[in-house]
Amino acid sequence: MNPLALTIGDPAGIGGELTLKAWLALRRTGPIFLALDDPARLERLADNLGLTVPIQQVADPAEAAEIFGTALAVLPVRLAATPVPGKPNPANAQAIVASIAQATKLALIGAAAGVVTNPINKAALYQAGFAYPGHTEFLAALTGATGQQIMMLASPMLRVVPVTVHASLRDSIAMLTTDRIVAASRTTAAALGRDFGIAAPRLAIAGLNPHAGEQGALGTEETTLIQPAIDRLRAEGIEVSGPWPPDTMFTAAARGRYDVAICMYHDQALIPLKTLDMDHGVNVTLGLPIVRTSPDHGTAFDIAGKRIADPTSLVAAIELAAKLAQRRSA
Amino acid sequence: MNPLALTIGDPAGIGGELTLKAWLALRRTGPIFLALDDPARLERLADNLGLTVPIQQVADPAEAAEIFGTALAVLPVRLAATPVPGKPNPANAQAIVASIAQATKLALIGAAAGVVTNPINKAALYQAGFAYPGHTEFLAALTGATGQQIMMLASPMLRVVPVTVHASLRDSIAMLTTDRIVAASRTTAAALGRDFGIAAPRLAIAGLNPHAGEQGALGTEETTLIQPAIDRLRAEGIEVSGPWPPDTMFTAAARGRYDVAICMYHDQALIPLKTLDMDHGVNVTLGLPIVRTSPDHGTAFDIAGKRIADPTSLVAAIELAAKLAQRRSA
Repeated sequence: MNPLALTIGDPAGIGGELTLKAWLALRRTGPIFLALDDPARLERLADNLGLTVPIQQVADPAEAAEIFGTALAVLPVRLAATPVPGKPNPANAQAIVASIAQATKLALIGAAAGVVTNPINKAALYQAGFAYPGHTEFLAALTGATGQQIMMLASPMLRVVPVTVHASLRDSIAMLTTDRIVAASRTTAAALGRDFGIAAPRLAIAGLNPHAGEQGALGTEETTLIQPAIDRLRAEGIEVSGPWPPDTMFTAAARGRYDVAICMYHDQALIPLKTLDMDHGVNVTLGLPIVRTSPDHGTAFDIAGKRIADPTSLVAAIELAAKLAQRRSA
Repeated sequence: MNPLALTIGDPAGIGGELTLKAWLALRRTGPIFLALDDPARLERLADNLGLTVPIQQVADPAEAAEIFGTALAVLPVRLAATPVPGKPNPANAQAIVASIAQATKLALIGAAAGVVTNPINKAALYQAGFAYPGHTEFLAALTGATGQQIMMLASPMLRVVPVTVHASLRDSIAMLTTDRIVAASRTTAAALGRDFGIAAPRLAIAGLNPHAGEQGALGTEETTLIQPAIDRLRAEGIEVSGPWPPDTMFTAAARGRYDVAICMYHDQALIPLKTLDMDHGVNVTLGLPIVRTSPDHGTAFDIAGKRIADPTSLVAAIELAAKLAQRRSA
């Protein structure tokens, strides 16, 4: 398998430190990855953090495989300004975007097995003219993806897909439609089949309201929006259950009855996932022609440059990307 | 300490089975409780379920202490109709209500140390003319409680207080006000001090929106409603923090930094509580002049009469009521 392509993320965040620590964690076992980053800044960072990570600049991703046991392969992306931990700099926006674009291109042409993205700071990119709401939309444009992209969060204990994501709770409720629930569920079912090796995935659809509306006494969306989505998905042969009372569907016993929970809003999905396992959550983008994962956290400017960033989620993201890529190529 | 008074709950639900099993679990160790129930129906139920629980009718709660090791003391409440598992019968509504009223009276006069309520079915009570939204409002009326009553859910891992409770998610957002957040937090802080022995309780106030609104990009309630509540509570000398991003405030590390989470809606509180520990959650009513707890589940009509009901939450509710009563009397 070709190496995975790991992007730079915001160089003022913890991404660089995580990249170095992920290499230390994975150098003997793999999966093999290469960083699309600035070699000089990684060398300085390793030095400052006291991490022994030999950096080797490469011109071809394939070189990463040969050297991975002894050095971190870096396909150079030049930063315009020296990054200062905790202080995002719009001058570096172009390099951040270029790293994502190049990683995606490598994955599209097959030179990389998939893309793993370090966290970005959207505000800094917007200031520099970045025209996409986030990573996912940019990747969809770069890959010419049709259909809907879906964010799935996966940990060893739970997989969740929020139907609405980055909107206020009030707006999330307003955005909820039967079509959205159906589309997200379809994309999820297809991806679990293709990439996760689950032949007949079982989808648990959450209610929106307390007690899933209690027969209309505590809300009507279960009857007007969610049940119709369940009926349509069943008619398509997808194995769905619900609408489930949100508060009892994430217990250990309940989790055993499904492969993924389709959730109505961000925190309905993220609260149980992070409460159960803060560190091993991985963000997977479903519905792209390439494999893409990312750690389940942000740039963490407040702890950047302090050697205390925990690479567990990035390591899990790299490992999951490798698994998904293997299944796609099998 | 006087015995705790345990109500009958809906006799078509799992309450009777739980009462019998709780006595079997606690007979050697206590806490001592007496059931306000129909002795004949409990005898039949024990027989049907194959549970060896001698039932002894008493006229005075104090008798419970003498006999608790060898028999379950029952202060009789006569049912009008023989209960059928899974089939609530409005004919028994009066007895259900009388059991709650009598238990409350015993607690008010000090003959019982506190009240533990078995689950009721509101629909069946409403049909019979019960005029309160639920247990809590009825208990507030019976005890002449002033101020606001608050539901706290407590498990060994987490305490949560939902500021809005039994309303649709949409209505819960609309009901959220600074005053409500302040009142719930005040009642909670006072109760943690008085009943839980936490001298300076630390309250973590949740945000409403994903990422706690991300500086207004994902919602404004954090700025317009929640932060002003935090400011007012601080000015009163209550130790509060927040508004916290809801998805990361229930991790093990985060939970170590507070004594109770003040949550903006039902599932924000109940999802983490039940996901972490489905069985040991106890419902505590704060702001009443008497101690009152209940198990964190409903009547479970679907499994009534099958001997599979799990008494863990009722046992935890009895144990917690005893602890709270001891602290109040100390």
